[in-house]
Amino acid sequence: MTSRSTPAVPTVTVGAYLARRLVELGGAHLFGLPGDFNLSLLDEMLEVPGIEWVGNTNELNAAYAADAYARTTRGVAALVTTYGVGELSAVNGIAGSYAEDVPVVQVTGMPETGACQRGALLHHSLADGDHEHFARAYREVTATGSVLRAADAALEIDRVLRVALERSKPVYLGIPADVAVARVSSAPLRRPLRPAPSDPVALDDLRVALAEVLADVPALTVLAGTQVHRRRAEGGLAALAGRDGVRVATLVGAKAMLPEQHPASLGTYQGAMTISPDVRRAVDEADLLVLAGAVLSDVMTGLFSHGFDPSRAVRLGIAEAVVDGVTFHDVRLEDTLPLLAEVVRDREFAALPPVEGVWPHVTAPSAQAEAGDGPLTQHALWRTVQGWLPEDAIVVADAGTSLYGSLELRLPPGAELLVQPIWSSIGFTLPAVLGTCLAAPHRRSILFVGDGAAQLTVQEIATVLQRERSAGQPAPVVVVVDNSGYTIERVLQSPKAVYQDVTSWDWLAVPALFAPGRDVLTARAGTRAELEDALDRIAAAPERPAVVHAVLDAHDVPPLLARLGEAVHGTR
Amino acid sequence: MTSRSTPAVPTVTVGAYLARRLVELGGAHLFGLPGDFNLSLLDEMLEVPGIEWVGNTNELNAAYAADAYARTTRGVAALVTTYGVGELSAVNGIAGSYAEDVPVVQVTGMPETGACQRGALLHHSLADGDHEHFARAYREVTATGSVLRAADAALEIDRVLRVALERSKPVYLGIPADVAVARVSSAPLRRPLRPAPSDPVALDDLRVALAEVLADVPALTVLAGTQVHRRRAEGGLAALAGRDGVRVATLVGAKAMLPEQHPASLGTYQGAMTISPDVRRAVDEADLLVLAGAVLSDVMTGLFSHGFDPSRAVRLGIAEAVVDGVTFHDVRLEDTLPLLAEVVRDREFAALPPVEGVWPHVTAPSAQAEAGDGPLTQHALWRTVQGWLPEDAIVVADAGTSLYGSLELRLPPGAELLVQPIWSSIGFTLPAVLGTCLAAPHRRSILFVGDGAAQLTVQEIATVLQRERSAGQPAPVVVVVDNSGYTIERVLQSPKAVYQDVTSWDWLAVPALFAPGRDVLTARAGTRAELEDALDRIAAAPERPAVVHAVLDAHDVPPLLARLGEAVHGTR
Repeated sequence: MTSRSTPAVPTVTVGAYLARRLVELGGAHLFGLPGDFNLSLLDEMLEVPGIEWVGNTNELNAAYAADAYARTTRGVAALVTTYGVGELSAVNGIAGSYAEDVPVVQVTGMPETGACQRGALLHHSLADGDHEHFARAYREVTATGSVLRAADAALEIDRVLRVALERSKPVYLGIPADVAVARVSSAPLRRPLRPAPSDPVALDDLRVALAEVLADVPALTVLAGTQVHRRRAEGGLAALAGRDGVRVATLVGAKAMLPEQHPASLGTYQGAMTISPDVRRAVDEADLLVLAGAVLSDVMTGLFSHGFDPSRAVRLGIAEAVVDGVTFHDVRLEDTLPLLAEVVRDREFAALPPVEGVWPHVTAPSAQAEAGDGPLTQHALWRTVQGWLPEDAIVVADAGTSLYGSLELRLPPGAELLVQPIWSSIGFTLPAVLGTCLAAPHRRSILFVGDGAAQLTVQEIATVLQRERSAGQPAPVVVVVDNSGYTIERVLQSPKAVYQDVTSWDWLAVPALFAPGRDVLTARAGTRAELEDALDRIAAAPERPAVVHAVLDAHDVPPLLARLGEAVHGTR
Repeated sequence: MTSRSTPAVPTVTVGAYLARRLVELGGAHLFGLPGDFNLSLLDEMLEVPGIEWVGNTNELNAAYAADAYARTTRGVAALVTTYGVGELSAVNGIAGSYAEDVPVVQVTGMPETGACQRGALLHHSLADGDHEHFARAYREVTATGSVLRAADAALEIDRVLRVALERSKPVYLGIPADVAVARVSSAPLRRPLRPAPSDPVALDDLRVALAEVLADVPALTVLAGTQVHRRRAEGGLAALAGRDGVRVATLVGAKAMLPEQHPASLGTYQGAMTISPDVRRAVDEADLLVLAGAVLSDVMTGLFSHGFDPSRAVRLGIAEAVVDGVTFHDVRLEDTLPLLAEVVRDREFAALPPVEGVWPHVTAPSAQAEAGDGPLTQHALWRTVQGWLPEDAIVVADAGTSLYGSLELRLPPGAELLVQPIWSSIGFTLPAVLGTCLAAPHRRSILFVGDGAAQLTVQEIATVLQRERSAGQPAPVVVVVDNSGYTIERVLQSPKAVYQDVTSWDWLAVPALFAPGRDVLTARAGTRAELEDALDRIAAAPERPAVVHAVLDAHDVPPLLARLGEAVHGTR
């Protein structure tokens, strides 16, 4: 007779458990750096099939890359850093993910539980015996967090990750070295994590309320913000835009959420800074305005120069809606936008006449006809880029002249613009291109970054340029918009102050230092003709990464940035 | 008859008030970057005579440079960043200043008071209306801080700066844009700020207690730590070392606080990792051990392998002393060390025989006699450097092989070693060299930094190389110890894991990118002969900055680091 025994419960280590959840949620690429307290954690995580390590040059860059990766995949992204020195370098990037609604998981490898509890004076600590300082600091910039214990590690991982999923916010996991290798039941992994669904009762009530407000108006304008992107709700936006009686403007950061060739598209609205007066009126004087996933911050509203009253608008947020002053809780943007599209369909609005003059700066004859021989100007730069941008590109533009120049572009079909208008941390975009390349390897990432901004995070270009791509995958393009310092700050105040200058670099030497021996196309563009030539060569070699050094005057700005300066100085 | 009027009270702006205090306290060089919310503050601060702006490439680097500047001047140093995006990038550097007792002032230019109070949705914020998140995060890594109001701004600045002075810790000042330009009385500036002095009664009591414990012992060993450096107390240490019956060992981070040629010097003590067994015994078996400004962290004690009982030692801290279990409050290290020297003088110990074998690795014949033709080894690197180091040099060594290699050096007269053994943030040292160059322009700064570490902060080398020096001022030397990744982590765990590798750079291209057109000496050192040749050329050209690319095997380590690995793996 054989002995009877309880079947062993299948287990995994806590590190592997976390990694399996990350793979499930779209975070298969793991960003970060190793350090003394995360080696065991990394060893466990990297054992999991599907996980791929992306070593970064520093932790801030890792956070930026993870942020852009999560934006592009619309899933979660994770970075793993060591305790103290590592995690604190990433905090600016994580705060940016909070401000801009991106679900990034900051994973910190911590010292062993016992050492923390007895207050050991370890390196990477403040040497005061308190090992919770950094987890507490992270509370200020994350939606939730946890320092894991072996006993309930899996439960806590699931709880924390669900908050990231539901709120599109960053979260924090501190994992002591002993907990990283502790074994927990793998049973919970048999059921995928998903966010809480919308409340069906609240959705029904919202449908009635929307029908009531639509009954009284002849048409509506939707002003769509970044959260439409984060919640992957552009399908609902497109459904709405396909109905008669609907026009769609987007806020900075949601550009081309509705393709800009769409007849209902009003392009970008930015309060008094809106390029087209017709578009501005279509939003400010809408019969009914729907704010969809819209954060009405200073940059979004042209420094609060919007002409509409948000309290009178229908507001659809990440997890709640407000109609006529009444709040509907637990209704998710990805559900409320399609719901609104249904209500609009049933309302049967009359067709609207087309809005004229949405793209005056793109279609004006002067936009094409400019001599190519003088020094390159911001005007010529963006007009040339407008004519060159390939379909499906991921255009990434840093804060400053690059942001304001790219906002004037009419993006070609399939293209999108990745910017950071709320957090506006200069240097964000260079590591962000690593994230977009990994998240969307079949699309060309095209970066515009000022020289001042690029200096903050330049080393990540090594990871971008040296990362292997499969045959046929397009290579990234980096355009350094070199205007000798912080031009956007010169617009705001003290244009000739010593602090506006940066050291002068030879950007064409970037590949020599950061990617020796790699085939990188480089070009200096000091005139429009040189820029056109460079862009032609880049278009002809999609698999060659490219670095363009575009040389511009320190005080030359795109028209939108000039408008910002005028708004700040009250000269308009 | 002329009208009578009250004489106007002289005023300054809050920004200028702060700048004048900083100049007074040794922080005349101002590190940082401009940003949307600190331009008015910078304009006010830079008006003050003596203030000099040092623009950095990013805020973490600014914090690192300020830290090293304050270490070197023994005064305070300040960096000015913008709100949110700027200050959060610096937080790792400020935490390092906390861990290592360095008085750095983090100055954040904030949005206007009114906008903060009404919760305006500004860029650089989390867009949740709460503008105190970042000041709260800073509470975790600073000794005190304040978000200034115009009404008591001067009082608060003085209070906060005095904490930095008294505790040798970083502090935080958040200055809203309107407060930066508000005018306050300049009267407080007529009296210089100084820290609270020692309590004379407690000093008297301490003298008695010290005399009592010294009466019972024939000799004493002083183990001096980093706080002796921070409190500029090396004069007291030297006075002590000049007495019969006293020997002095230093902890990592306090190396050469007593010149290493001094007959009383025992060199560096590091628990079981101490190079000389004689030195280890002299500390562990001391008749009386005095811990002077010593933080007994893991790295300091050879992973807690020290053989003495700290509770039985006399302890002299930054502002308190403990003798025989009794605490003496408000007695400052810079006073207690000279006091102890007086008590020792009166005690009239007998002279001690010299300790043999303090520098076995320096004086052994094998140290000089090594063939120069094979690939460069860690052993050959540090032996060659030993023979080359100039007097008065500031040697800066990053965490990893550079730290452990430099700990084996016997520093020449006047030279010191700047390391970060508690916080141990890789990449710290490259911006630190900017700080040492500005703080000590007449000494040569010589950096040893691993390739992995240098990648984190490499862009600050542009500021280092492009900064103008006066004629006769020596230029910095940067030695990149390239061992293809994180060798110190390879020693600890999983030496061949994918996360141990970094991208391969051509370090000789550093000047081409970061200092085009500047005269920089570059050299590749793949053998001992090549290294010797490079160092000879560098010695012959003291005013030329130099970048040396030293190529080493990924698994080759200095002996001290090998000992660390053995300690971690329990193989000793």
